[in-house]
Amino acid sequence: MGVDELNERLASVFEEVRPYAVTEVWENHATLEVPASSVVIRPGGTVSGPTVMALADAAAWVVVLAHIGWVPLAVTSNLSINFLRKPEPERLRATAELLKLGRRLAVTHVRVFGGTEDRLVADASVTYAIPADRGNAAD
Amino acid sequence: MGVDELNERLASVFEEVRPYAVTEVWENHATLEVPASSVVIRPGGTVSGPTVMALADAAAWVVVLAHIGWVPLAVTSNLSINFLRKPEPERLRATAELLKLGRRLAVTHVRVFGGTEDRLVADASVTYAIPADRGNAAD
Amino acid sequence: MGVDELNERLASVFEEVRPYAVTEVWENHATLEVPASSVVIRPGGTVSGPTVMALADAAAWVVVLAHIGWVPLAVTSNLSINFLRKPEPERLRATAELLKLGRRLAVTHVRVFGGTEDRLVADASVTYAIPADRGNAAD
Amino acid sequence: MGVDELNERLASVFEEVRPYAVTEVWENHATLEVPASSVVIRPGGTVSGPTVMALADAAAWVVVLAHIGWVPLAVTSNLSINFLRKPEPERLRATAELLKLGRRLAVTHVRVFGGTEDRLVADASVTYAIPADRGNAAD
Repeated sequence: MGVDELNERLASVFEEVRPYAVTEVWENHATLEVPASSVVIRPGGTVSGPTVMALADAAAWVVVLAHIGWVPLAVTSNLSINFLRKPEPERLRATAELLKLGRRLAVTHVRVFGGTEDRLVADASVTYAIPADRGNAAD
Repeated sequence: MGVDELNERLASVFEEVRPYAVTEVWENHATLEVPASSVVIRPGGTVSGPTVMALADAAAWVVVLAHIGWVPLAVTSNLSINFLRKPEPERLRATAELLKLGRRLAVTHVRVFGGTEDRLVADASVTYAIPADRGNAAD
Repeated sequence: MGVDELNERLASVFEEVRPYAVTEVWENHATLEVPASSVVIRPGGTVSGPTVMALADAAAWVVVLAHIGWVPLAVTSNLSINFLRKPEPERLRATAELLKLGRRLAVTHVRVFGGTEDRLVADASVTYAIPADRGNAAD
Repeated sequence: MGVDELNERLASVFEEVRPYAVTEVWENHATLEVPASSVVIRPGGTVSGPTVMALADAAAWVVVLAHIGWVPLAVTSNLSINFLRKPEPERLRATAELLKLGRRLAVTHVRVFGGTEDRLVADASVTYAIPADRGNAAD
């Protein structure tokens, strides 16, 4: 799937959460952004952890689906994240790399950048489980 | 802090995200719920991963603050979660256990239960960083 | 598999590493020990991280095989561990709980205890991948 | 610390485990190798998980100490690893990147490569805790 189709799919699946935008997709990689207006702020002026985690999860979802096509029932099976710096309440950007695409598991590595200097905010590993019946026919 | 104060604090910090309710706090433990009406649903009728992660993060936050008092700048430093079963779109419940309370890090273990049978949905480890200056004075 | 068979299997697979002993196996649980004489010590008199990780990995392996039988090609797919306290250079004990046994993945939660007071030393999540062809026939 | 001093330190701390060799140290990075002769083999001819984890842990230790100098009591506080491919029983190589160097925590990202084609075998995050009293005086 290309950027346009991924953005459409993202909107249908994640719309209740946040308006993500896929900005680039290339071999084993995808880049996603969430605008400052949709970032949840915690006391102290920083971005909430769940905002960053949800973005990392969405970025992994995008890079997986960009490579296997539309599999509506692909779900996160594991996510592990280190928060490195408190981002300013600005636009966040995530880059996901597909490290392994097995028949049943797709393992990704995601970095989240933020703030005016686009510094590394979080480093995450996200694994998606791909159902045996990919359900494409139903789509 | 007891259940009432924790619920007040939760509302002030997490209100933009979801209406959590602390239901119990006891030695090294806390229990939290999120009502079905606030659970984000993914295609296939299951609960979204970020909903579960955000609940696990909030549960860890509650068990830490229940033991150290109000530290507004405590932030998640690491979260690792395994999603075990797809929960039905119902109320979710999380139990957090404080495994270690150091001066600078608090490590917790969180289990999330869901659905009509209250089955184990996810198992998580969440670490919070406690700032050197706890900032209580400012409160 | 029971305790005796598990100990035999453990010896055949892990013998180069360390002499583990399965002490108990019950529903969804197993307990393992490693004697003080086999624990690798780091500067400062504490147990090395890899000693603790290897024990957690072995404990997960035991609880999985105790429930699915001998599957020689089951391998670790994910391990996440928090080190909580520096154990004294004594016997270590691990308890593994099987949280989910799917057809292809088995997710476990492992706690490692150590020292004279048997305190909690580490908390881990370990996932094993179970091959489609379990290879029992070859055994 | 440079490559020679790091190799000396490594030998003193990890000698009981495996003969690692630091091959390169550059800004925020370090590369480590373990020879095929020291790799523990599991049934099926693959490298044992603990061998890979111990290498990732050692690589993180090297990149941290390369940047903060000799701190004997720095210990692993968190390690999270995804095993991606079963390596052939050959030399393994790890590259560690220092993502964040705080006063009390150092967060690294480690990739392990192996086999004749030097393919990506595992992807890990390793955090070291740096003691308040770094203990250099005692050295």
